[in-house]
Amino acid sequence: MSKSIVVDVKFPQDAVRKALAGAFSGREVINMADPASSGRDLTDVDYAIVWKQDPALFTRATGVKVIFSGGAGVDHILKAGGLPDGVPLVRFSDRSLTDRMSEWVVMQCLMHLRQHATYQRFQQERHWQELAQPEARDLTVGIMGLGVLGEDAARKLKVMGFNVIGWSRTRKAIDGVECFDQAELDHFLGQTDILVGLLPLTADTRGIYARTLFQKLRQGGALGKPVFINAGRGGSQVEDDIIAAIDIGLLGGASLDVFEAEPLNSGSALWKLPNVFVTPHAAAASDVFALVAHVEQQIARYEAGEPLQFVVDRALGY
Amino acid sequence: MSKSIVVDVKFPQDAVRKALAGAFSGREVINMADPASSGRDLTDVDYAIVWKQDPALFTRATGVKVIFSGGAGVDHILKAGGLPDGVPLVRFSDRSLTDRMSEWVVMQCLMHLRQHATYQRFQQERHWQELAQPEARDLTVGIMGLGVLGEDAARKLKVMGFNVIGWSRTRKAIDGVECFDQAELDHFLGQTDILVGLLPLTADTRGIYARTLFQKLRQGGALGKPVFINAGRGGSQVEDDIIAAIDIGLLGGASLDVFEAEPLNSGSALWKLPNVFVTPHAAAASDVFALVAHVEQQIARYEAGEPLQFVVDRALGY
Repeated sequence: MSKSIVVDVKFPQDAVRKALAGAFSGREVINMADPASSGRDLTDVDYAIVWKQDPALFTRATGVKVIFSGGAGVDHILKAGGLPDGVPLVRFSDRSLTDRMSEWVVMQCLMHLRQHATYQRFQQERHWQELAQPEARDLTVGIMGLGVLGEDAARKLKVMGFNVIGWSRTRKAIDGVECFDQAELDHFLGQTDILVGLLPLTADTRGIYARTLFQKLRQGGALGKPVFINAGRGGSQVEDDIIAAIDIGLLGGASLDVFEAEPLNSGSALWKLPNVFVTPHAAAASDVFALVAHVEQQIARYEAGEPLQFVVDRALGY
Repeated sequence: MSKSIVVDVKFPQDAVRKALAGAFSGREVINMADPASSGRDLTDVDYAIVWKQDPALFTRATGVKVIFSGGAGVDHILKAGGLPDGVPLVRFSDRSLTDRMSEWVVMQCLMHLRQHATYQRFQQERHWQELAQPEARDLTVGIMGLGVLGEDAARKLKVMGFNVIGWSRTRKAIDGVECFDQAELDHFLGQTDILVGLLPLTADTRGIYARTLFQKLRQGGALGKPVFINAGRGGSQVEDDIIAAIDIGLLGGASLDVFEAEPLNSGSALWKLPNVFVTPHAAAASDVFALVAHVEQQIARYEAGEPLQFVVDRALGY
């Protein structure tokens, strides 16, 4: 008999049920959101797809061979806890997720480059005035986090003309992108006009985007002041420091898709800061159809004896 | 003796004087904006750089061998008049101008794709809500005008994931971009979700972006309604029709950098239409340093007996 799959993802269930309906042909799929699943014996289940799962899940599904994350980040899964040791945890990665993230990142970089907030204000005031305008090659975008998402964003930002540099814990090699490692963070920051955060949330990256880091970004570049863009994880940023940095002119602007607590509190000063764009963790929504296709592909590899892709190093947290 | 150059460009003279200061080594440069130039005998001048020139210029500079346009479009030069017959007119084209235009076009396409106007309204209202979000490959951008600018924008939009098609008077061939010619306009429009105008202003293109054209754009695509983006010439658009098309929901939005009359009248309804972005003819400002470098390069070709590039067909008007 084909191996069965348990699904415990805290996504809107409409989308989950639609995506599961035509998926995993020939396999039993147990969706923990269905009331009928509550008493089901899970000892024979081979695969699990999880996102903010019930930590007790793996005390019942004791035979799971591979765990699939419902999102690109796995911090919500590691935090929910209860994961059995030694079982591979596979991160979600697909073309759609990557493309959507790069759309958002490139758009935000272009809006800062092209002084969109000021032109929007001029438009509101019916005011016709051209600004002095640097071009993309006059600016350096520094990307922190050079996984699949960071590398794709780097490539597309380069096509748009930006000078692009990158930083990651261990040094990466990306064509046309000068890459820095952990020890060279200050050197990387000192060349960066637009900082793009695409880091996973780990013990090392929690609160990393703080005043001490913003102080090391290049001042006096083509936009005058540096800009901070975060599409990684909200837990990596110190929002009080972002607000203070904008207030005192240490940062000239920001684009934030993620927040320390989501949804962002309606009382936060971030909503109304000048030259700050806020989106509701919408940069790269996980498409459940794409997630299902990704899991089917990885299961096919696994059952054919090929190595799984996108396996998480739990010690590193990503 | 080296051949001399007359300059009559209606650009801010600070920038012009700075750019001319170190340029055209060994040649005499006569800037018509300098009072000292008013009485100068111009019969020995070989080259002219013009933009909205005095039509009497060529009654004095009767020996000009090549005329260089100060901008990518030449309608302002042809309109100013007085050009001697049979003298080559060279359009301004340079990497910087092209890159800046593509920055603006790609940014505008991304802002419509990613529903930026709605998210900005949500931000104003401190409202956290994620929208259903198509990705770039779900949309077709149709570019009218496939010169240097249109081709560069097409290539960059494709890298960002958009499906891209193109239209021009005579059919072009661009890798990965389905191209249509004059007779296939309706077929082209019927597949277009985001229309990007990069046409020169000629007798054929005056007023081309009108209600009858907007009615042929695809309805019911991934954004619901089509969007119109114009970075070519304002004379190609009928602004009353754009306003009406937005009002009745024939168009879902627009981005306009050019206008029938510039500066745009502060009483125009365009300033305040929903999902309409207005910029003050700032998409691709002619950089005077780049213009000077371009003219130096073309003069070097000409004096070496090589063919000039970017020569305008005056009958076609571009």
